Amino acid sequence: VSKEAPYLLYYWPGIQGRGEFVRLAFEAAGTAYVDVARRSASSGMGLPAMMKLMQGGVRAPLAPPFVAAHGELVAQTAHILQWLAPELGLVPKDAKSRRWAHQLQLTVTDLLLEVHDTHHPLATHLYYEDQKAAARKRAAAFVAQRMPKFLGYFERVLAANPAGPAHAVGRSLSYVDLSLFQVIAGLRYAFPRALARLAPAIPHLLTLNERVGRVPNVARYLKSKRRIPFNENGIFRHYPELDH
Amino acid sequence: VSKEAPYLLYYWPGIQGRGEFVRLAFEAAGTAYVDVARRSASSGMGLPAMMKLMQGGVRAPLAPPFVAAHGELVAQTAHILQWLAPELGLVPKDAKSRRWAHQLQLTVTDLLLEVHDTHHPLATHLYYEDQKAAARKRAAAFVAQRMPKFLGYFERVLAANPAGPAHAVGRSLSYVDLSLFQVIAGLRYAFPRALARLAPAIPHLLTLNERVGRVPNVARYLKSKRRIPFNENGIFRHYPELDH
Repeated sequence: VSKEAPYLLYYWPGIQGRGEFVRLAFEAAGTAYVDVARRSASSGMGLPAMMKLMQGGVRAPLAPPFVAAHGELVAQTAHILQWLAPELGLVPKDAKSRRWAHQLQLTVTDLLLEVHDTHHPLATHLYYEDQKAAARKRAAAFVAQRMPKFLGYFERVLAANPAGPAHAVGRSLSYVDLSLFQVIAGLRYAFPRALARLAPAIPHLLTLNERVGRVPNVARYLKSKRRIPFNENGIFRHYPELDH
Repeated sequence: VSKEAPYLLYYWPGIQGRGEFVRLAFEAAGTAYVDVARRSASSGMGLPAMMKLMQGGVRAPLAPPFVAAHGELVAQTAHILQWLAPELGLVPKDAKSRRWAHQLQLTVTDLLLEVHDTHHPLATHLYYEDQKAAARKRAAAFVAQRMPKFLGYFERVLAANPAGPAHAVGRSLSYVDLSLFQVIAGLRYAFPRALARLAPAIPHLLTLNERVGRVPNVARYLKSKRRIPFNENGIFRHYPELDH
């Protein structure tokens, strides 16, 4: 691996995207990592290094994000977090809690796909501008049905945590909390009106978002240049016409 | 748990859906399980028993499939398989191979969502008939871009397996093989023309599909009443107008 850091993260440069859920885990843990595709190609990194790993060979991933560590290359956001959270101190020690954390993270994964599809309902490879009419319909259904369903579920998860509603799993910060922070941050960017309307129904989620944003390592990261701003190339895009 | 079987599977009755990937694992392993929602409500099972578990409480799942076993309730198809495959003998013993299997299964999960969205591009809660025009466009993109991308990837995975192309992971039948069998069976049902066109590019996948279908436990299951036929309520639906 790298002499600079034990973890190499590969993800599209220029967007938060799914990679952000992994970045937040490294940052919250205060762990050194290299964001490979954002480095220069002349240094042997950059996008070419990432694309090379996707081109095939034994156990090659289909898509980023993926992480190289301990001589292994692991893809799929929720899977990366399941793999690394124990050594990053971001998940409880017992097996049942770890399964519960992974189950919640896979539900976050489902939500992210639906968020993505609000602006790309017809085809990932077409521009938003070429699927605007369908996007309006899909976003309307997302805002009216799916967003309340998912956020209502996560709100109930916090409320039902026997250790209290400050965390999704157990009594301390886990990668699921970091991911729920990011979900709220992203929805607030993409759908500010819809989120404001839902706010009274999701007090625990909003409090969690605020608290996680103030965790010192996270707060430092959010102010740093390492945090890519939300933009209209990522998963969470602000198109006012979609924010019903 | 049940006196009848150590595993209780909860999934929508009447469709194969995501539950089928779990059913195939139980069936291939020759393991007794109860398909709860397909039993009668008067016996204390059926849909009411499933809905009750989704209504909330500590660590409640958002959606089926979920499995109750060993005093635990676990949701998310890929996660259920990761959890149970070791005791069902459907994954190699080493941790790296298990991670690789899970990574592949999560890629199958991604593909299934895209298959679902070919007939429901605008909203899950609307009828297909109310989103037919968008479905035609989404399906065209799926057939032209996404289906070759995913199947091409899985074909390369088989070709690159150091133990040979008969299995996705290691040298014996795993839950990933069962899932790839089901992916091909489903695509053959939903998109027969598109699959026939792709056939020359995916010989290993087609051979795997054939071989898995002949595994005695699987063959017996496929002929049984326990195998729900493909239909137009599931993930894989045959609408000729979408099979470009």
